[in-house]
Amino acid sequence: MARIVQPIEIICIGNEILIGKILNTNAQWLAKRITALGLTVRRITTVGDDIDEISNSLREAIQRNPVFIITTGGLGPTFDDKTLEGVAKALQRQLVVHGQALKMLEEKYRRFVEEGRIERLELTPHRVKMAVLPEGAKPLFNPVGTAPGVIMKHDDMTIIALPGVPSEMKAILEDSVVPLLKQVAGDVTFFEISIDATQIMESDLAPLIDRVMHDNPYVYIKSHPKFEERLPHIELHFSTTAEDSSTAKNRVSKALIQISEMIQAKGGKIKSSKPSIKTS
Amino acid sequence: MARIVQPIEIICIGNEILIGKILNTNAQWLAKRITALGLTVRRITTVGDDIDEISNSLREAIQRNPVFIITTGGLGPTFDDKTLEGVAKALQRQLVVHGQALKMLEEKYRRFVEEGRIERLELTPHRVKMAVLPEGAKPLFNPVGTAPGVIMKHDDMTIIALPGVPSEMKAILEDSVVPLLKQVAGDVTFFEISIDATQIMESDLAPLIDRVMHDNPYVYIKSHPKFEERLPHIELHFSTTAEDSSTAKNRVSKALIQISEMIQAKGGKIKSSKPSIKTS
Repeated sequence: MARIVQPIEIICIGNEILIGKILNTNAQWLAKRITALGLTVRRITTVGDDIDEISNSLREAIQRNPVFIITTGGLGPTFDDKTLEGVAKALQRQLVVHGQALKMLEEKYRRFVEEGRIERLELTPHRVKMAVLPEGAKPLFNPVGTAPGVIMKHDDMTIIALPGVPSEMKAILEDSVVPLLKQVAGDVTFFEISIDATQIMESDLAPLIDRVMHDNPYVYIKSHPKFEERLPHIELHFSTTAEDSSTAKNRVSKALIQISEMIQAKGGKIKSSKPSIKTS
Repeated sequence: MARIVQPIEIICIGNEILIGKILNTNAQWLAKRITALGLTVRRITTVGDDIDEISNSLREAIQRNPVFIITTGGLGPTFDDKTLEGVAKALQRQLVVHGQALKMLEEKYRRFVEEGRIERLELTPHRVKMAVLPEGAKPLFNPVGTAPGVIMKHDDMTIIALPGVPSEMKAILEDSVVPLLKQVAGDVTFFEISIDATQIMESDLAPLIDRVMHDNPYVYIKSHPKFEERLPHIELHFSTTAEDSSTAKNRVSKALIQISEMIQAKGGKIKSSKPSIKTS
């Protein structure tokens, strides 16, 4: 039975990504984690630290009606941390100091005083800023850093704002967001495996992939030409999402055997396999 | 004098990015290269191998009116290489076999026969597919791989489709696209430098950055909290784009000295500097 696709969009916010200063490892980590839970990332958008860019990209994502929109970056204390201003603008909500968020921050800075990192507990405007949330939003506890994550509902969608610092982003996702994602995903398994084919060109593999995907409608096969060695080879990546692990494996195995035989019949060779199972 | 911003959008196409199988190093490489030329990447969008997703993301980008839209991925011979179908749909153009593109491919496969990689020169449908371009588009020679890049005009915009294989993407960009980007950028220099600040919290740095950016309107300063060592530190990244290298350096130096003094006056310390100059 075909599963209902539960699409998710990721919006990454930060000029440092747009100038190529950093690799967007947050997007890959989130995409991998969400996929492993049996959900589908439909789009990843990166915009700069600009209220209109953030607001427009969020509005556009809302129009595509995903179940979740997850943003990363722009929650800190500096002038260019503009995510929540952009979110408030997109949703036409006021920005208000959130009592519970302010308490979370106070607790953090109290600890910094105890650790001797700051002299006295003082909630400066730049610190209070991290507790200013769009009306109706709730803070998500940040076990690693200072700025809380933020969650809010909009129509049937859930919008979640996470910090850009990877360790904070991952911790809040695991603690507060994964349980919600699991509820939506239900009980499913994502399974993937790769094999390398040599002595066959991608253009000759193409019709074989067409045939095998036609015969195995739940298995997705993608070819990636590689040049790591003297002779080029092609990585074939198989993936599927199924109700349980054995169904997923059986589906992929069937497709893998079929294409391996076809490749060998054409004089090609299969080099290796690297299985990987992920269960939500 | 304020420079006219010449925005560019990047659209990355490939399910392998959306499932987190690969890191989007193409986007970072392109963003870095384009920024170094003095141009601005305004948005990076990643969509899957789906004609409607490609077509919609391109149409949306066109509405934002950038000078260039550069896509990566989806130009190969397999069923899921759908970029040009998506582009044709967005621009409402027919897909046609392009004579020059077909010649480029024939030349490639002729060489593969000579090298003994294939038995005979045969332009199968999957090979011809790589020469099927939107009407009015032109192929860009691929010095590394098989599928040519593609360039076309739409209103005042230039749309460029590059392969997803990094070595091919880079080679076509350098050979055929950089000269066009330089024309648009004019004679400008991008300059960036980072310093690390310790013994000061990001929330205490925030008002200092506000002040220095106010006093130095052409310098962009961004703080990145880091936790690589036992004590956390904050990387401060300064960047500017100017008509020449000495103007760029002077601007950044002035801001750097100002903030360094302010940080030290607050009991913070400056750790190191890593300069980097990029000239178009």
